[in-house]
Amino acid sequence: MAYNYKLTIGYDGARYQGWQKNKNAKETIQSKLEAVIAEVVGEKVQLVGSGRTDKGVHAQAQVANFITKNRQKSNSLKYQLNKLLPDDIVIQEVHKMDIDFHSRFAPHNKTYRYTLWKANAETLPLFERKYVYHLEEQVDVDMMLVASLKFIGQHDFKGFSSDKTKKSTMRTVNSIDIIEEDDFIEIEINGNGFLYNQVRIMVGTLIEIGFNQRHDDSIEQIFESKDRSQAGFTAPAKGLTLIEVKYES
Amino acid sequence: MAYNYKLTIGYDGARYQGWQKNKNAKETIQSKLEAVIAEVVGEKVQLVGSGRTDKGVHAQAQVANFITKNRQKSNSLKYQLNKLLPDDIVIQEVHKMDIDFHSRFAPHNKTYRYTLWKANAETLPLFERKYVYHLEEQVDVDMMLVASLKFIGQHDFKGFSSDKTKKSTMRTVNSIDIIEEDDFIEIEINGNGFLYNQVRIMVGTLIEIGFNQRHDDSIEQIFESKDRSQAGFTAPAKGLTLIEVKYES
Repeated sequence: MAYNYKLTIGYDGARYQGWQKNKNAKETIQSKLEAVIAEVVGEKVQLVGSGRTDKGVHAQAQVANFITKNRQKSNSLKYQLNKLLPDDIVIQEVHKMDIDFHSRFAPHNKTYRYTLWKANAETLPLFERKYVYHLEEQVDVDMMLVASLKFIGQHDFKGFSSDKTKKSTMRTVNSIDIIEEDDFIEIEINGNGFLYNQVRIMVGTLIEIGFNQRHDDSIEQIFESKDRSQAGFTAPAKGLTLIEVKYES
Repeated sequence: MAYNYKLTIGYDGARYQGWQKNKNAKETIQSKLEAVIAEVVGEKVQLVGSGRTDKGVHAQAQVANFITKNRQKSNSLKYQLNKLLPDDIVIQEVHKMDIDFHSRFAPHNKTYRYTLWKANAETLPLFERKYVYHLEEQVDVDMMLVASLKFIGQHDFKGFSSDKTKKSTMRTVNSIDIIEEDDFIEIEINGNGFLYNQVRIMVGTLIEIGFNQRHDDSIEQIFESKDRSQAGFTAPAKGLTLIEVKYES
C-alpha cells in the first residue's frame, strides 16, 4: 500500500533559495521539507509542489504532496513535522488524499498578493519590512486599478516573464484586486498558473503606470511584442506572497 | 547655542541587548543610535530615552532626545539618520524642542502592548512569529479580563517586578485593555511608569489565570506580600512592544 499526503505550507522565503531543490545543495524550501519528512516517515520521499516560488518569495499556503508506504496519522504528521522544522517554515494542514492526487497537475488556481508600503505613509515600515516593497514616490492607485483590468483574461504573458521556455506562455488571469489599507497597497492576482517572475513584472509595470512613467496602453503592446524589455521592472521578491492554491474538487 | 531634538523611534528588538548602552560594548539600541547621530551632527551626543526596554522587547514609538550645538533641520536629520541606520531601527519623527525638554523626567505615560497567539488559532504564527508569544493551551479571555481590572490604580508592584532597587516601587496603571482579534489576543497596558519586567510578569500572571492555574485573588496577595516568587512567569520579551510615550503638553 502507498499513502498520499497533501501539505499546506507557510514559509518566510527570506533566507531560502526559493522552493525548488537544486544540485548545489543550497537551502531551499523543498529540500528542507524533504529532509524533515524523511526523518518523520522513515523513508526518502519526493515532495511535489503546486509550483515553484522564486528566491525570497513567501507563502501563506503553498500546497505540496508526497507518497509514502508508511501510513501516518495526519495530525501526528503535522505535529512531528512542525517540531522538526525551523520557525520560518510551518505546516498549516495535512490531509490524506486519493493516491492519484498530484499538486501540480490537478486543476487549480492560485492567488498571489504583492504588498507595497506607501511612500506617503506616516511611518516607515518596521515590523513589516521583510514582507513589503517600500515605494520611494507616491503612486496613483486609481491609474493602477484601471490599468490592471487589461491583464484579465487569457493572454500570452511571454513579455511579462523571465521564462526562457519554448513551451506555451499563454496564461489566464481571473482577477486582480488592488486594496488600499492603512499604509499598505495590496495587489491580489488570481490565475490558473504563472510564468517565471510573471507576477513581479506585472506589479513592476503597474507601479510604473502609477508613477505616471508609462501609459496603460503599453500593456497591450507588451502582449503583442512578447518583448520582456518593454515591460516594467521586476518588483522585489520580498513583497510577494503565495496566498492560496485552490483545487477543483 | 544648543539645540534639543526629540526622536520618535521604532525598533525590532530581536537582535539587540535592549535599549540601554552598557560597558561591554554589546549592541544596544541606544549605542547604535548614538553612533549614528554623532556621524550626522558631527559631535558626540548623549541620547536620553523615556526609559529602558529589556533585551528583545520592541518599540513602535519609543521617545528619546539629545542636545547638540550643531543646529539641524528636523526633516534632514530624520532622512540622514534613517539612511545610516539598519532596517530594524527606524526614526519615525524628529521634533525640535525647548532646551529643557527631558524624555525621562518630563511627565508622561506609556502604553505597552503584549501580543499572544491563540493556541486554537487555525494556523501557526509565521510572519508574526518574532512578535507574538504562542500559547500552548487555550486561555479563558473573560477570566483574564476580570482579573486585569485588579491591576488598575496605584499599587506597590514590587512583587510584579525583577527590580532589586530600594527606590519606591509604587506605580499607577491607568488602563488595561484585552482585545481578541483574529488569531491574536492583545493586552494593552497604560501607566505612568513601569518597573523592570513589570509588564511581562503582569502578563505571565494573567496567562496563568486564563489557564485556570491560579485565582485572580492572588493579584491582591502579591501586592501585599511584595513577593516576586508568588507571581506568574515572566512572559517572553518578543511578545512585548512599547506602543506610545505620551507627554503632558
